[in-house]
Amino acid sequence: KSVAIVGGSADARKAGNIIIDNLRTFGFAGSIYPVHRSGGIIQGLPAYPRLQDCPEPVDICVVAVPYHQVNAIMADIVDADIHHVIIVSGGFSDAGSRGRELEGELLAFCREHGIHLMGPNSIGIVDTASGFCTSIGTLPPMKKTGIAIFGQSGTFATGFALEEITCRNRGFSKIACMGNKADINECDFLEFLAEDSETRSIGCYIESVTAGKRFMDAARYAASRKPLVVLKSGRTEIGARAAASHTGALAGSDAVYDAVFRQVGIQRAEHLVDFFNVLRAFDMCPLPRGNRIGVVSITGLGCVLSADACGQYGMHLSEVTEDTKNRLRDLVPEWAPIGNPADIWSTIEQHGPFEAYRRMCQIMLSDPQVDLLVLIVVLLDEGVFDAAEALGEVIASYPEKPVLACHMGGRKVHLEKFEQDMASIGVPVYNSPAMAVK
Amino acid sequence: KSVAIVGGSADARKAGNIIIDNLRTFGFAGSIYPVHRSGGIIQGLPAYPRLQDCPEPVDICVVAVPYHQVNAIMADIVDADIHHVIIVSGGFSDAGSRGRELEGELLAFCREHGIHLMGPNSIGIVDTASGFCTSIGTLPPMKKTGIAIFGQSGTFATGFALEEITCRNRGFSKIACMGNKADINECDFLEFLAEDSETRSIGCYIESVTAGKRFMDAARYAASRKPLVVLKSGRTEIGARAAASHTGALAGSDAVYDAVFRQVGIQRAEHLVDFFNVLRAFDMCPLPRGNRIGVVSITGLGCVLSADACGQYGMHLSEVTEDTKNRLRDLVPEWAPIGNPADIWSTIEQHGPFEAYRRMCQIMLSDPQVDLLVLIVVLLDEGVFDAAEALGEVIASYPEKPVLACHMGGRKVHLEKFEQDMASIGVPVYNSPAMAVK
Repeated sequence: KSVAIVGGSADARKAGNIIIDNLRTFGFAGSIYPVHRSGGIIQGLPAYPRLQDCPEPVDICVVAVPYHQVNAIMADIVDADIHHVIIVSGGFSDAGSRGRELEGELLAFCREHGIHLMGPNSIGIVDTASGFCTSIGTLPPMKKTGIAIFGQSGTFATGFALEEITCRNRGFSKIACMGNKADINECDFLEFLAEDSETRSIGCYIESVTAGKRFMDAARYAASRKPLVVLKSGRTEIGARAAASHTGALAGSDAVYDAVFRQVGIQRAEHLVDFFNVLRAFDMCPLPRGNRIGVVSITGLGCVLSADACGQYGMHLSEVTEDTKNRLRDLVPEWAPIGNPADIWSTIEQHGPFEAYRRMCQIMLSDPQVDLLVLIVVLLDEGVFDAAEALGEVIASYPEKPVLACHMGGRKVHLEKFEQDMASIGVPVYNSPAMAVK
Repeated sequence: KSVAIVGGSADARKAGNIIIDNLRTFGFAGSIYPVHRSGGIIQGLPAYPRLQDCPEPVDICVVAVPYHQVNAIMADIVDADIHHVIIVSGGFSDAGSRGRELEGELLAFCREHGIHLMGPNSIGIVDTASGFCTSIGTLPPMKKTGIAIFGQSGTFATGFALEEITCRNRGFSKIACMGNKADINECDFLEFLAEDSETRSIGCYIESVTAGKRFMDAARYAASRKPLVVLKSGRTEIGARAAASHTGALAGSDAVYDAVFRQVGIQRAEHLVDFFNVLRAFDMCPLPRGNRIGVVSITGLGCVLSADACGQYGMHLSEVTEDTKNRLRDLVPEWAPIGNPADIWSTIEQHGPFEAYRRMCQIMLSDPQVDLLVLIVVLLDEGVFDAAEALGEVIASYPEKPVLACHMGGRKVHLEKFEQDMASIGVPVYNSPAMAVK
C-alpha cells in the first residue's frame, strides 16, 4: 500500500526519480513517498527528510544511495518500523572481500530487526498486477503475459523488459532482480511463483544456488505446476570466476547442476537467447501431448535443418499416416516426394502460397501422429501471403497442438509483418529451424 | 557476354522473367536472350523461338522449365553449341528413384556433349562483379562485401540475400546455389573462390561431399588463403534422411566430417545463424593475432556469460597488465572491482556512458595482452550514447584488433541505431555475449 524511495533528488535523473516514474507508468495505486534529507519536491511529490516523517506506515522501502550511506538509512528503517527493503546500491559482495564483510553486517542487522531484504545490488521488482515497478531504467507500459522471470541480473527489469515491450509488444507477469540475494533468494521466488495464478511459466537466471535442498524442493514443486526454465551460468571455470566477481556467487560443479535440474524437471536453457525464446513458446503455445513433430517448409534446407534439430534435441519427426500421405498426394505435383518434412515449394508453384500453406498445415495438423507443427517460410516477394488469414482458423481448430514458425530470410518489411501476423494468431516466430525445434 | 533464358513467358511472373529482372538490377552488361517457342516480347526483350535463333553465340543458358521439358531444351543447347547450362528445374535426384535416373541420363548427355552443368534444382549464381544474377526471387541491388557463399540451397540467393540487403544494407561478393550438383560441385567453387580476389571469406553449406580427396585438397588450399566456414547438415540420422530426400545427398558419418574439417582448417558452423554471424565477423574485422579476449560490459550478466563462452569456445579472458589495472583504477569508483571482464556500470554512473565507454575501450584495446575486444551494452534510455562518435577513433587506432559488440536488450529505436552506428565503424553486433565470443 505504500512505498518509500530513498535516493531521488530534485534536480537529477537519479535512480530514485526513475523508480517513481515507473511506479506511475505501471499504475501503482498505493502511496509513494520520496525521502530526501533536504525535503523539497521530487518528481512532483513532496519529499520527506527522513523515513520516520512519512505520514503513514511504509510497507516497503527502496534504497538507491551510495553504499556507504546505506547503514544510516537502515537505522532510519528500524526507527520507522519498516520491515521490507530493496537495496539497489552495489558495493557489497559484488565488490570484493571488504564488500562481502559489509554485506554480512547488513544481513545480520536485518535479521536482528526482522527486516526482509532484497539485494543488495538489486533492481527490485516489476509486478504488472499491482503496478509495483522499481526498475531503475525508464520503462513504457508493459503488456501482461503469463511469464515471470527472476534472476541475479538487473538486465531483466531494464534492457530485456524494454526490448520485449518495444520490439514485440509483449511483457511479463512479474520480474524480480535478486541482486546479491543476501536474504531473499531463488527459493523464495520459486515458492511464490509456483502458486501465483498470474504466472503460467517461470524463467530463472542463477549464478549459484543458496540452499541446495530447499532449492530442489521448491523447483520440483514449481516444475510440477508449470514450465520452469533455468539459465545457469558459471558453466565453465572461467565463467564461474566471473560469476564470483559479479554477485559473489560460488558457482559449483556444472555437472551437478545438470543432474539436479533433470531430476526436478527443470528445462535448462543453454543460452540467453534460448531462455527467452523457450519462455515465449511456453507462454504462447499449449504444452504438446508428445514429441512427434510435423514440418512444413518452403525450402529443402529448412526440412534438413529441422530434421537435424529433431535428432539433436530428442524430438521425433512424425511418421505421418497413410491418410495424410494420400491427402498430400492430391495436393503436390506427381513427381514431388511425399512425407514429413513436407517441402511445400512445388505446391506453392502450383497453388500459390496462401492456398499451399493453408491446405498443407491443415493436412499435417489433422494427422493424429503429429503432436506439434513447425512451419518454415522464406519471405521472397514471390512467396508472401497473409499468414494470419491463411492459418488463423486452421491453427485455432487444433488448440491442443503447438505451432511454431521460423523464417529463413526475406525482405525486412515482410519479415516484420509475418512476425506480427503470426503473433496475432498466437504463433511464436524464430530465426532458424533449430531454434523452433529446440 | 551473353545469356539465354528459357522459361519466361509474356504474361506471368515466371522464374525466367524474374531472372531477366535480376540481371538488369545487378547491371549485367552482356546480352540477354529470352527464349520462348511463341517468340513475342518477355520483360521488354524480343524472345527467340529456339536457342538456335539467338543472334550471337550464347555463353550460358539458364533453363527454368518443368522437368519433363528439359530434354528437349538440352537437344537445342547442343544444336546451338552452348557449353554452359544452369538447370533451375527440380524433379531430378531431389524427387526419388525415377528422378535419380533422369539426372543420371542428363549428366551422361552433358558429358557426351561437353556441357558444364550447374544443378539441376539450382537457383544459379549471383556475381556482384559482372552483375550476373540468376536468382528466381526478385532482389534489390546488393552492396558488395568480401563474403562468398555457396551451397545446396536456393535460400542463399533468395531469402538470405534479401534479408542481408534489406535488414543490414550488406551483401556478398558471390553466391552460388549448387542444387543437386550432378556435375559442378563444392570442389569447383572452393577452387575458384580460393583464387577470387574479390572474396575475402568463404561460406559453404553442404549436405554431402561428392569427391572426398578432391574436397580435402580444395578446402585445405582455400582455408590456407582465407577463412572458410562450413555448415554441414545431416548431422543426425534423422537429418541425414531428410538430406537424402532434399538433394539426393548421402550425408555420411558426421564424426568423419568433423575430423576432416579440423584437419583441413575449416571453421565448422554449428547452426545456420552462426554461419552468417561468423562470416560477417570475418568480413568486418581483421583476423585476431591471438585468442585473448578483453570484455567491457555494462552488465555483470554480460561479464559472466562472455566468460562462460570463452571457456566453451576455447578462448581466453586476457590477464590484463598491471598498467591497465592502474589505468582502470583511475577510472572506476574505489569500491568497484578491477580487471577483465570490466564491468562498466559504476563508471557510467560516474562519467556518463559516452566517456565511460570511450575511455574503458581505449584502456582495454591498448593492453598488449588483449587480442580482441567484446563490447556489451544495454540500451536503456539512461545508457544511450553516440557509439560511432565515442568509439570510432579509438577502434580505428587498433586496426589489428577485432572488436565485436553485443546488446543485451534495450529500446527498439536505440537497438537499431546502435547496430547502424557500429556497422558504420566496422563493428558487427550480435544479440548475446555467447554469439560475440563464438
